[in-house]
Amino acid sequence: MESEANGADRKPMSILEVEEWRRCAHQMVDFIADYYRDIATFPVRSQVEPGYLKALLPEAAPEDPEKLDDVLADVRTKILPGITHWQSPSFFAYYPSNGSTAGYLGEMLSGGLNVIGFSWISSPAATELETIVLDWLGKLLELPQQFLSCGGGSGVIQGTASEAVCVVLLAARRRSALKLMAQGILECEAFGKLSAYVSDQTHFCVQKAAQIAGVAANLRVIPTDSSTNFALSPSALRKALAEDIASGYTPFFLCGTVGTTSSAAVDPLGELGDIAQEHELWFHVDAAYAGNACICPENRHNLEGVDKADSYCMNPHKWLLCNFDCSTLWVKHPKFLTDALSTRPEVLRNKATDANAVVDLKDLQIPLGRRFRSLKLWFIMRLYGASGLRSYIRNHISAAKHLESLIIASDRFEMVVPRNFSLVCFRLKAHEDDSARGNTLNATLLEAVNIRGECFLTHTILDGVYTLRMAVGSTRTELQHVKDAWAIINHEADRLISIS
Amino acid sequence: MESEANGADRKPMSILEVEEWRRCAHQMVDFIADYYRDIATFPVRSQVEPGYLKALLPEAAPEDPEKLDDVLADVRTKILPGITHWQSPSFFAYYPSNGSTAGYLGEMLSGGLNVIGFSWISSPAATELETIVLDWLGKLLELPQQFLSCGGGSGVIQGTASEAVCVVLLAARRRSALKLMAQGILECEAFGKLSAYVSDQTHFCVQKAAQIAGVAANLRVIPTDSSTNFALSPSALRKALAEDIASGYTPFFLCGTVGTTSSAAVDPLGELGDIAQEHELWFHVDAAYAGNACICPENRHNLEGVDKADSYCMNPHKWLLCNFDCSTLWVKHPKFLTDALSTRPEVLRNKATDANAVVDLKDLQIPLGRRFRSLKLWFIMRLYGASGLRSYIRNHISAAKHLESLIIASDRFEMVVPRNFSLVCFRLKAHEDDSARGNTLNATLLEAVNIRGECFLTHTILDGVYTLRMAVGSTRTELQHVKDAWAIINHEADRLISIS
Repeated sequence: MESEANGADRKPMSILEVEEWRRCAHQMVDFIADYYRDIATFPVRSQVEPGYLKALLPEAAPEDPEKLDDVLADVRTKILPGITHWQSPSFFAYYPSNGSTAGYLGEMLSGGLNVIGFSWISSPAATELETIVLDWLGKLLELPQQFLSCGGGSGVIQGTASEAVCVVLLAARRRSALKLMAQGILECEAFGKLSAYVSDQTHFCVQKAAQIAGVAANLRVIPTDSSTNFALSPSALRKALAEDIASGYTPFFLCGTVGTTSSAAVDPLGELGDIAQEHELWFHVDAAYAGNACICPENRHNLEGVDKADSYCMNPHKWLLCNFDCSTLWVKHPKFLTDALSTRPEVLRNKATDANAVVDLKDLQIPLGRRFRSLKLWFIMRLYGASGLRSYIRNHISAAKHLESLIIASDRFEMVVPRNFSLVCFRLKAHEDDSARGNTLNATLLEAVNIRGECFLTHTILDGVYTLRMAVGSTRTELQHVKDAWAIINHEADRLISIS
Repeated sequence: MESEANGADRKPMSILEVEEWRRCAHQMVDFIADYYRDIATFPVRSQVEPGYLKALLPEAAPEDPEKLDDVLADVRTKILPGITHWQSPSFFAYYPSNGSTAGYLGEMLSGGLNVIGFSWISSPAATELETIVLDWLGKLLELPQQFLSCGGGSGVIQGTASEAVCVVLLAARRRSALKLMAQGILECEAFGKLSAYVSDQTHFCVQKAAQIAGVAANLRVIPTDSSTNFALSPSALRKALAEDIASGYTPFFLCGTVGTTSSAAVDPLGELGDIAQEHELWFHVDAAYAGNACICPENRHNLEGVDKADSYCMNPHKWLLCNFDCSTLWVKHPKFLTDALSTRPEVLRNKATDANAVVDLKDLQIPLGRRFRSLKLWFIMRLYGASGLRSYIRNHISAAKHLESLIIASDRFEMVVPRNFSLVCFRLKAHEDDSARGNTLNATLLEAVNIRGECFLTHTILDGVYTLRMAVGSTRTELQHVKDAWAIINHEADRLISIS
């Protein structure tokens, strides 16, 4: 028994033997640095066909250990062709995923410590640093004090904005259901009476959250149009509320957006907030992408009215140099989240929790375990400084402005909506009497550009108009990359027009 | 305009300039390697008091960039004291968080590529490798073919077992609610009729998932006791089902556990599965910790009956050398998950998705964005091989067996339940006529051991009995660390008994 254990227990050491770990991790650093160095040699959008990888890999795990060099060779030849290179400076699709040196260093440290910070005692620094850096970031955004720890609020890092809106929707559902239950209504019946409000430009994660919470049947999707540049109209909201109240529904939740996914539209937070307060709605502000820009004073006006919100979310992984994932959520009243999500099992009981001396962040999110993600934000704010972060945002906006000016000056292209932040929505002009042909033309142009592999853009449809989206925000994107992409777009437009 | 952009756009380069990135990342590798080298010098459970960090850090982010050396110095002096060292070989608390060289390399690469694999096209390799490695792992576990891609099933990596059970509960809710709705019942009323079944040993994440899904009112918690070693009794389940059916409820969900959180109890999956099939319940098997051990043939019998389950979850980050987070979920019918969670917004439309040629993994989870976590599993299975992984599990179980033999041989300690896998549940014997005193004595012993900082154990309560839990499963834990902890426990027991 003893000798068996002794004989066997040498193995785990080689599984995390320190000097071997050091050597292999150095090797991986060089592998990734070389990837960054060579990134422009890969097609930005992966060009593989569905199912490509299955043919290249064995059907089962190997019985015996393989060598790192062999695995890295496979990464090079089999994995990289299947990568869409979000870190390429010519990535203009969706909204970006922002890696940086500081963000990566924080990620490395988090992975190395490998702590699971579900409750304070499970790693006090993980909980406390999160509170501190979210206060820091909240101050950079000039969030009202009620969102910060000193004002009774709370910041908490979620994985994604989808999770953030899910937890606040659940908190709101609980808060409003309790009121109805106090009137003798069963909880499940209460769910059937609750109505929520978004615009047709609101991120689809709110729809998903409503499905999860079981309140999707009464999610009102308010149409927008170009008259408000696709922002939610307060009068349309008032009308929807009045109809629902007349029909016996209990409005409970409103989501406003700063920088919509399609076109970076900005909802009028102040007016929406007034309506929310009047009707006791939970008012959530989703600023996943554009919120980051509001650390610059010249952009801060987009957040005016956020003081009337109950919760505010933004994704530093989108545009604040934070490696994915890191979605920062602030709430004024964390109590409503813990009411909806808290559990206190015996196995996690400890002195600090029992004494209510600490916050256990597991109670402000869906998962139990959580990584030490605040390290990334801490590294970023310290290593770039607030001034460095502002300058980073300004460079992208400035490059987007330049693109906008080229489009406006162009004969054949047009802006579909005015540029907001660093998102440029444009298209090849179409004959007004043939919108279907215009849409096909632009879809064809998009694919012609993307298939070349030199840059990657995506699209949206605004009021029926097929629109090219160019989000300038990848970490290493400079003005020259925008100019290069514009030259490619023009080149393909030439070809397309000469054919048709 | 041009010159302004040119002048400014040098900055982003320094934010991810390749050679600087390389140099800094190498520096971080050495920092973490030194941490592993010195890990035994830190108290395993952090000894700080609540609020310690606030006093040590500024109230706001710096305006100007700071130096990496200064940040790392702060990590050393301010953060590390607030860390509970999950990677310490003397960490025996909760269930472990398993870092490894291979797991970390996969994590590094995932962070470096920094792709967001919500849909296939957003990085085909991320989706395809996930399917492939979950097939590999499923085969190591001898999961039935219906869980694998070749059998129409699907594996998908979630962050935590909490998220896994949440998505399957939502899928089950949708499936059963649709049946009721077909009878003319409103969706929200259907939720009120659905009843779910767990034992009092089931992980509390199922309770949380039921709260989220709005079906917690009819979550039946079936008591267990020492007669089944705290496993769920099929006859008790049948009784609960009969009562609910008689009262007009529609039973829809059952969770069985292989390796409960408290005592690693194993529910009888075969019998539970028969009952589930008879009543058309969604049968989920949570094997977060112990499932990993079932890659060894001698432990595989614990999964007998899993072929009757609809979904199976286990956490390689708990005991399969995978850095946190990585929770692997397999389902037989992914369609039910997509029915509950799918969204198809215009901005994500693409040829492959429209042609139904691919799976978009965002539709099998709550968040939209997702990291490239399958790299970790791929690296682990290749670099250690199936044989290395089995030997790793066996070493821990062997060390736990040794501890069990010491406890059984001891005069003053006793096992509270028989050891299962690598979890040892024990206590100082108490006079049978004074259970309160016995509980206090053991709670005092636990705190006396933990405050020393040389090892970290946690507790549970089984049938009213305060129980010390020693989970042998940290990556670098060897037999000697178990022996050392046992010596400390005995030393403190001596002191305690001499005082009392």
